[in-house]
Amino acid sequence: MSFQLLQQQYGARIDAVLRHHIDQLDNLAPELKAAMKYGLLQGGKRVRPLLVYASGELLQADARALDTAAAAIECIHAYSLIHDDLPAMDNDDLRRGQPTVHKAFDEATAILAGDALQTLAFELVSGNDSALDAGRRLRMVQELAHASGYHGMCGGQALDIKYEGMAVEMATLESIHRHKTGALIRCAVRLGALCASELNEAHLTALSRYAEAIGLAFQVQDDILDITADTQVLGKTQGKDAAQQKSTYPALLGLDGARALARELHQQARAALADIPYNTHTLETFARYIVEREF
Amino acid sequence: MSFQLLQQQYGARIDAVLRHHIDQLDNLAPELKAAMKYGLLQGGKRVRPLLVYASGELLQADARALDTAAAAIECIHAYSLIHDDLPAMDNDDLRRGQPTVHKAFDEATAILAGDALQTLAFELVSGNDSALDAGRRLRMVQELAHASGYHGMCGGQALDIKYEGMAVEMATLESIHRHKTGALIRCAVRLGALCASELNEAHLTALSRYAEAIGLAFQVQDDILDITADTQVLGKTQGKDAAQQKSTYPALLGLDGARALARELHQQARAALADIPYNTHTLETFARYIVEREF
Repeated sequence: MSFQLLQQQYGARIDAVLRHHIDQLDNLAPELKAAMKYGLLQGGKRVRPLLVYASGELLQADARALDTAAAAIECIHAYSLIHDDLPAMDNDDLRRGQPTVHKAFDEATAILAGDALQTLAFELVSGNDSALDAGRRLRMVQELAHASGYHGMCGGQALDIKYEGMAVEMATLESIHRHKTGALIRCAVRLGALCASELNEAHLTALSRYAEAIGLAFQVQDDILDITADTQVLGKTQGKDAAQQKSTYPALLGLDGARALARELHQQARAALADIPYNTHTLETFARYIVEREF
Repeated sequence: MSFQLLQQQYGARIDAVLRHHIDQLDNLAPELKAAMKYGLLQGGKRVRPLLVYASGELLQADARALDTAAAAIECIHAYSLIHDDLPAMDNDDLRRGQPTVHKAFDEATAILAGDALQTLAFELVSGNDSALDAGRRLRMVQELAHASGYHGMCGGQALDIKYEGMAVEMATLESIHRHKTGALIRCAVRLGALCASELNEAHLTALSRYAEAIGLAFQVQDDILDITADTQVLGKTQGKDAAQQKSTYPALLGLDGARALARELHQQARAALADIPYNTHTLETFARYIVEREF
């Protein structure tokens, strides 16, 4: 199956699941509910849910548990985007061509919607609507918290702000991306595996290596596309990174060097999958897409 | 023991626990870590930790489990204050006489520090450092998430913003407070009880009724003090509520009516404790303090 078809399929599935969870909220605070829904359902590549599904399905995980895990991780991702877009952070008025949450609503509502989506993620992943036992769900809470908090996404975001507009070394750039985006991508693959009834730590380790490689590759390719792609194809202003003096892989390694790194990371991801004795076709397709995509 | 002594004792204990958890974070993002610590250790009444301890100790709960639960709920409270103080929300420069987090650091760091403190709360309460089994810890995650998210604190905050400067009815005022502050106070008492090895749902229900009554009483007394207390004793500008056209209990019920309501809620709290066949002295002392305090 092509990546585009996979994305359509899983995208429709996660959209329905997210819509269901938001519609289930009572009408205590309709504006807040609307802002949460707007932030969650603004579209996007749904990369993290797709990884939850792909990783879980290769281990025959329970479909309902996967829906819940995928929704939880997308709530974390959506909250981080809503807060990142705020005037005090990246100050973005548009996301995917639509007004950002603080533009469509207001800043206070955007802050609260982000806060409440983070909480919802933990409510979902700890909830009783899957067949998983308490120990497994507790572990999923722990992994999601670790990946999204100080030691993961929030810490990476703080690093990114700290080094904004500065020339950084390769190790720092990698640390920023490993935390800011990598930790949650790794978590997505792990949550998928944790939804399977049988838990094999060796497979979990291999899946994590896969996720670490594609997480970085995704960022390297993003940096490359910022230089090479048309603004129209990219959906955002081409060359924005350079204009903002952002440290990027092409800036540190040159365009050819960055392309070589993306290829190397692709190989690492494939090598990790070779250690898993199941049908890893979907995860392979995803890895190939990461380095071949043009937007 | 007097309330002041209780507060000193438990205050010192929770400060040490919070300091320990923050100091344990690695140095990935030192500014973020400093902002989280600043927001957590700015003092305050430590009402929620005190309720965790008092509720848990009457049921002979494990001390370590109580420390963790108390720390988690204080992380949630601290994050909510950091975000509430932001320019887009209450726009407060000072809290307890000190610069607010976005003043001592900057807005972006304050947003992130709040976000990371929320995550830390779930990391703590789901963590492996207590003797509680997975099922119990999972339930604590569920209760904390429910009390602090859309159906609790975040929803109440959204209501509070919605009705700011508007004359509201009694039922609306109560709904705002029950969600914005009441849900977390109720959760504190329940988390304390959930740290006990034996779980008695009837006791949990009685404790919840106690907490619901004192949670509202606390707010009623706050509104009364805003009118009657000296600015100096209160530590904030006296009459600020009236100046901001906030809906208050004295505005709706008159000063005598508000005082009568506080006394009635105090009686409800005492009646709830009468259903618990253990030493409820600390919780009684706390309830009395709520309605007798002068700041």
